[in-house]
Amino acid sequence: MIPDDAMVALRAMLGERLSTGKSDLALHGRSETWHAEMPPDAVCYPKDTAEVAQVMTICARHGVPLIGFGTGTALEGHASAPRGGLTVDFRDMAAVLEIRPEDMLVRVQPGCTREALNTELRATGLMFPVDPGANASLGGMAATRASGTTAVRYGTMRDQVRGLEVVLPDGRVIRTGTLAAKSSAGYDLTGLFVGSEGTLGLITELTLKLHGQPEAVSAAICAFPSTGAAIETVILAIQMGLRPARVEFVDAATAAILNARDGASFDEAPHLLLEFHGSDAAVAEEAERFGELTTEAGGSGYRWATQAEERTRLWTMRHRAYHTILASRPGSTAVVTDVCVPISRMGEAIDRAAAEIAASAVPGPILGHVGDGNYHAILLVDRSDPAELAEAKRLSDGMVAHALDLGGTATGEHGVGLGKLHFMEREHGAGWDVMGAIKRALDPDGIMNPGKLVRQN
Amino acid sequence: MIPDDAMVALRAMLGERLSTGKSDLALHGRSETWHAEMPPDAVCYPKDTAEVAQVMTICARHGVPLIGFGTGTALEGHASAPRGGLTVDFRDMAAVLEIRPEDMLVRVQPGCTREALNTELRATGLMFPVDPGANASLGGMAATRASGTTAVRYGTMRDQVRGLEVVLPDGRVIRTGTLAAKSSAGYDLTGLFVGSEGTLGLITELTLKLHGQPEAVSAAICAFPSTGAAIETVILAIQMGLRPARVEFVDAATAAILNARDGASFDEAPHLLLEFHGSDAAVAEEAERFGELTTEAGGSGYRWATQAEERTRLWTMRHRAYHTILASRPGSTAVVTDVCVPISRMGEAIDRAAAEIAASAVPGPILGHVGDGNYHAILLVDRSDPAELAEAKRLSDGMVAHALDLGGTATGEHGVGLGKLHFMEREHGAGWDVMGAIKRALDPDGIMNPGKLVRQN
Repeated sequence: MIPDDAMVALRAMLGERLSTGKSDLALHGRSETWHAEMPPDAVCYPKDTAEVAQVMTICARHGVPLIGFGTGTALEGHASAPRGGLTVDFRDMAAVLEIRPEDMLVRVQPGCTREALNTELRATGLMFPVDPGANASLGGMAATRASGTTAVRYGTMRDQVRGLEVVLPDGRVIRTGTLAAKSSAGYDLTGLFVGSEGTLGLITELTLKLHGQPEAVSAAICAFPSTGAAIETVILAIQMGLRPARVEFVDAATAAILNARDGASFDEAPHLLLEFHGSDAAVAEEAERFGELTTEAGGSGYRWATQAEERTRLWTMRHRAYHTILASRPGSTAVVTDVCVPISRMGEAIDRAAAEIAASAVPGPILGHVGDGNYHAILLVDRSDPAELAEAKRLSDGMVAHALDLGGTATGEHGVGLGKLHFMEREHGAGWDVMGAIKRALDPDGIMNPGKLVRQN
Repeated sequence: MIPDDAMVALRAMLGERLSTGKSDLALHGRSETWHAEMPPDAVCYPKDTAEVAQVMTICARHGVPLIGFGTGTALEGHASAPRGGLTVDFRDMAAVLEIRPEDMLVRVQPGCTREALNTELRATGLMFPVDPGANASLGGMAATRASGTTAVRYGTMRDQVRGLEVVLPDGRVIRTGTLAAKSSAGYDLTGLFVGSEGTLGLITELTLKLHGQPEAVSAAICAFPSTGAAIETVILAIQMGLRPARVEFVDAATAAILNARDGASFDEAPHLLLEFHGSDAAVAEEAERFGELTTEAGGSGYRWATQAEERTRLWTMRHRAYHTILASRPGSTAVVTDVCVPISRMGEAIDRAAAEIAASAVPGPILGHVGDGNYHAILLVDRSDPAELAEAKRLSDGMVAHALDLGGTATGEHGVGLGKLHFMEREHGAGWDVMGAIKRALDPDGIMNPGKLVRQN
């Protein structure tokens, strides 16, 4: 509930850009995945940082929860409103503010999506490489420390955010970081807000690093006799200094589904799909060197190409995987697991997860960004069946517990949200209390995205 | 002053490993640079994390300041004890604990130096690339977010620390980060402690990323008609996707000093020295492509080589620069400036700094890690002459003010310590208050390295 006084003040300020329409509330409380719908009491669409600061000041005065919202593509219920309150939707703050080609930087507003940014960059020869799959907003990607297929070469949002403008819950506006490539001037506030999931403040501007569009790209595919052989090949490649831009793992179950439903004829075996970025000579050399490693590992059917059409063909398996998996059980919802383990233990971790899924009633092919040790089981459940949902959660929790035993993390890239909160104490120990102390220092009244990330009072 | 009760408790615990010897205190309060000697009241040499925690618990109980100490190579007075207290010297916690070649990680104790680590790694084919010049301890390098010549390719300590063990001022021991390559599980505590200069806790263990020793290395040198032409070439190279491992700038003044004192015969012009890491083919391709850029920029005398001896010869200028500069004014002390600016503004920033130095009574050749926008004037002063010291500080402050105007930072890699404290408010604005709030949340009694980094009470 938002107190009447607060609503009056917000309405006076925002007019039509404050909404309490039922469908709008539902849309902002909905999750793309299995999390229950938890709508806010109102949604607002600020136009600039000053408005965000004003909104936050009003909410702080009245103790109204504040939830940041980009495109609503978070997978762990980050944008839901378990305690009601006001959702701040950055739809109208989506501009590319400044491109600095010499510094290879761009300043954007938080609602700008990664695809919109890359469209804007096309003519500059530069690109923003982080690719989580969904066309997420850059503010949301920073808030969840997103990554995806290209992190093996370009890193995650942690590595790609140079600086931020953040509005604190008391309405103060701070700028973190500088335009310089590095700094030793005090605590890394940029790094603190990246991944803080809107629990410390709202991001109103981002300065992001850009990269040259690769001169050439090569793509490759290979089948392997076992998960372990595939992973071992990746480990050797990285040790040798190969720097693939993407290394995607697709399991035998996925190959089988693609064959059955898509008329494909893949070996029903684990596959790796790779992409290399660089000069013509470099991408050819990397693709050839990787090919030699696959032979030593007993891989089969290794092929690589540099022409765009041929590359797309080689990657068909990966491009079609997620949607074909979803369609393989019509009407199902995906519970997408998201652990990340030390790469040395990834083969055994994936094999164990696959065995546990096979022994359960829930289907769940496994895809992975295996250059990082990050993989996802796509557990297909009937969302209306509590027993299936419970089984999927049991499987996911088992994978997390195993990942933590191996020295890994409960979430490689999807974030904590509501879905991983129950593992934070186990993962961080007393470090979780330190996170709580930081939260209290910056948001003493606990109005920023309450119910998420830190220990709940 | 350390209260008698605290000394008794510390002595009972540490015996001979608690020292109050005058020379020991002086050694730990001394700076390598121009900062005044400020010795602690005692120095201790703990053997393990449990001892560090015990020491900190005793000091917390008695309000005794605690200062971490590695090798004493910090340049901004980080390890000095302006309020006395106990220095915790990690001399006896210097082990390499575990090498994980498949994960390309190593666990070390904080007193381990970067050279000791690389010696230990030699046979593994792996290396730790961060190179700040001095043979600093890895704990100290993390605490100051150090970088150096290789940051242009490998990043800074921010990028190379995977996780930490930290003892908090109340004696709690936390572990930050995991062995996984990435994580979205909550606030980035690793990033918060890296660069915190011992003001939030003491680092007792580090997990660091390793890299493959490059298969091949090429080195190159080129003279340029102007600073701007040199910098423009670096900008183009990075935009093209070249990934040099080092890009060092040496100014005309340094070339002149080397000619005069060292019998060298360099063009008295700005130079760039580069190093490329990769496969044989890749380092040759990068060196050749860079050469083409130097021609377009009016560069002269471009040479490159891959044989070790020849590489060393090409880099003579850089290897000899610092010590020859120091020796050019016998008995002088260096005030080393350390700003970092957006690379697009670096040419004008260096030219302006050089002009201001030329107009002053203090000599100060300029060297730079220009791939990052970071450069240092080596201001040579007679430390016993207050007027010269004041003039050097005026020049340094002028460079910082200009860097901040350009969107840069007061310190690229040396840290805040005592020397840059007076610029923190100007650089961070309200963000500095946020740093203060974090400090109070984690160190409410202000015993961790007091007098540094945050606003002083």
